[in-house]
Amino acid sequence: MNRQIILAKRPAGVVDDTTTTLVEAPRPTCGPGQALIKVAMLSIDPTIRTWMNDAPGYLPPIGIGDVIRSSGAGVVVESNSARYNVGDIVYGMTNWQEWVCADDQNKFTVLPIGLGLDLATVMNVLGVTGITAYFGLIDVGKFHEGDVVVVSGAAGATGSVVGQIAKVRGARRVVGIAGGPEKCAEVIEKYGFDECLDYRTPHLARRLHEACPEGIDVYFDNVGGEILDAALSNIAMRGRIVLCGAISQYNEMDTARGVSNTSMLIMRRASMEGFIVLDFAARFAEAQMELARMVHAGSLVHREHLVVGLENAPDALNLLFTGGNHGKTLVVVDEDVQLG
Amino acid sequence: MNRQIILAKRPAGVVDDTTTTLVEAPRPTCGPGQALIKVAMLSIDPTIRTWMNDAPGYLPPIGIGDVIRSSGAGVVVESNSARYNVGDIVYGMTNWQEWVCADDQNKFTVLPIGLGLDLATVMNVLGVTGITAYFGLIDVGKFHEGDVVVVSGAAGATGSVVGQIAKVRGARRVVGIAGGPEKCAEVIEKYGFDECLDYRTPHLARRLHEACPEGIDVYFDNVGGEILDAALSNIAMRGRIVLCGAISQYNEMDTARGVSNTSMLIMRRASMEGFIVLDFAARFAEAQMELARMVHAGSLVHREHLVVGLENAPDALNLLFTGGNHGKTLVVVDEDVQLG
Repeated sequence: MNRQIILAKRPAGVVDDTTTTLVEAPRPTCGPGQALIKVAMLSIDPTIRTWMNDAPGYLPPIGIGDVIRSSGAGVVVESNSARYNVGDIVYGMTNWQEWVCADDQNKFTVLPIGLGLDLATVMNVLGVTGITAYFGLIDVGKFHEGDVVVVSGAAGATGSVVGQIAKVRGARRVVGIAGGPEKCAEVIEKYGFDECLDYRTPHLARRLHEACPEGIDVYFDNVGGEILDAALSNIAMRGRIVLCGAISQYNEMDTARGVSNTSMLIMRRASMEGFIVLDFAARFAEAQMELARMVHAGSLVHREHLVVGLENAPDALNLLFTGGNHGKTLVVVDEDVQLG
Repeated sequence: MNRQIILAKRPAGVVDDTTTTLVEAPRPTCGPGQALIKVAMLSIDPTIRTWMNDAPGYLPPIGIGDVIRSSGAGVVVESNSARYNVGDIVYGMTNWQEWVCADDQNKFTVLPIGLGLDLATVMNVLGVTGITAYFGLIDVGKFHEGDVVVVSGAAGATGSVVGQIAKVRGARRVVGIAGGPEKCAEVIEKYGFDECLDYRTPHLARRLHEACPEGIDVYFDNVGGEILDAALSNIAMRGRIVLCGAISQYNEMDTARGVSNTSMLIMRRASMEGFIVLDFAARFAEAQMELARMVHAGSLVHREHLVVGLENAPDALNLLFTGGNHGKTLVVVDEDVQLG
């Protein structure tokens, strides 16, 4: 059988018991050109929550009754395709289920073995999370040596990597924004940021000004809303704001407060640009090489938050919004699958 | 004597009788390296209102008791500087007064004569207004032939020029946004836009979608707020939003509603960038050549709204916010000065 988690009802705010249902479907059989994949691990990303809304997005909404869309990794157990060999560890859109077929419509990437990295590390640092940090900072943010960089969600999977890449590449100053003193301590001590501001205490805009008196050259935004506004009011002349996500807004699409300080973009001749990491698909290897090198050099500290059991995937998703996760959140569906 | 309008009190909303005072000061005498200019015409721009606030900006606020800062044109009547000859018609920061000294701190540009254009036309089309339209569309907006262009404040001095440049350069479709049926008719009939939407009637976002079903490639924003939000929700993949001004927000700095749809920048991989035309000072001649050529070719229709009398400058400024002006607003201080 194939256990699957399907969308039962569109959530109004956070995902709850009525949002998804665990069902059993027959294990898929693979036709010509297809390969059967046993799912090992799911990547839990904030964007999954946006796909549950009936709203325009960069991909269509998940249909009611459809398996929750998600990237993940697994092992090829049967192959009728020259692309995949039995035993390959592959990465792609597994969705929230135990078995999936790869074919020309749903292509998977064979994960690199022999790098000395385990599956969770690869799914974090060499997966969408790390690659997003890399292209967001370097390409969209046009980072240059000597820049002052501010990152929100700095204790998070993407944010922590952004700050570390900026340090390695010679940022003048890297300041994180995170929720609570524990996360802020982690951002400085574990991830090596120069400073971290707790957004839960008042006067963030003023504290950002004190932390970056000459302004922010690159602001990497993972959260939107009030924190984005505080960064806008401190943007440097010709500063760049990278919009990676707006996690503060995803659960409250109708009441999202938006931002008030866009006129600072005029005053400071600054720009704000959004991106989706899939746009860089042709260049993923470039980022992965750089990130793998940093891990081996010890200049990229990473942390994974493993949740065991497919049935716990909805709770794992909610962790991203409550801040209850520590590092990249992954759901272990099959513990036996490991990278060679 | 030198009649001057000074800032008496910072305005809370619109400029009223208590905001400015008309005073008489002695006519300035010009020392070595200076030239005395008799002011002929003032350029009335929305940015003047922002300088009256005690808020950070691209220039410091106007001080209480200082003459209102403004660009304008005049004639050189005395010169102790090799830069200026008596009789030159010059353009620069005249401020709201009858006489001003040019020197190394306050430099003026000698206006081109012999182009067959009168002073009001030059101050509109070849002045900050037209130049802003040109660099905003071409450089900041990265306009390409075939783009769908939307312009707010389309009946205004800058907006009307933006649309006409876009048409001449081969836009697929140029849609204006303006206030009321009369202005909308003018935008289509006089300035040659393909369509114009009245923002005072409901459902602007939906009507923008109907007008631009494939999305907006370049949105030139003169107003901010709700109209910017409607454009954000219709931005095309890799669309560019040019922030030129936020006139809807200038009189209500504290209550400005800002924008809610910034997450569309992520969904559509779009960008939003602000600029100040002074950044392009080194390239003004490029824009002026192109704009003068368009005027002579009959492909740039322009309109000036002349208000006679220095004492009426505050009322002229308010016209920009009530929409009572038709075309570029200029205050005539001395009717006798004309371009040769």
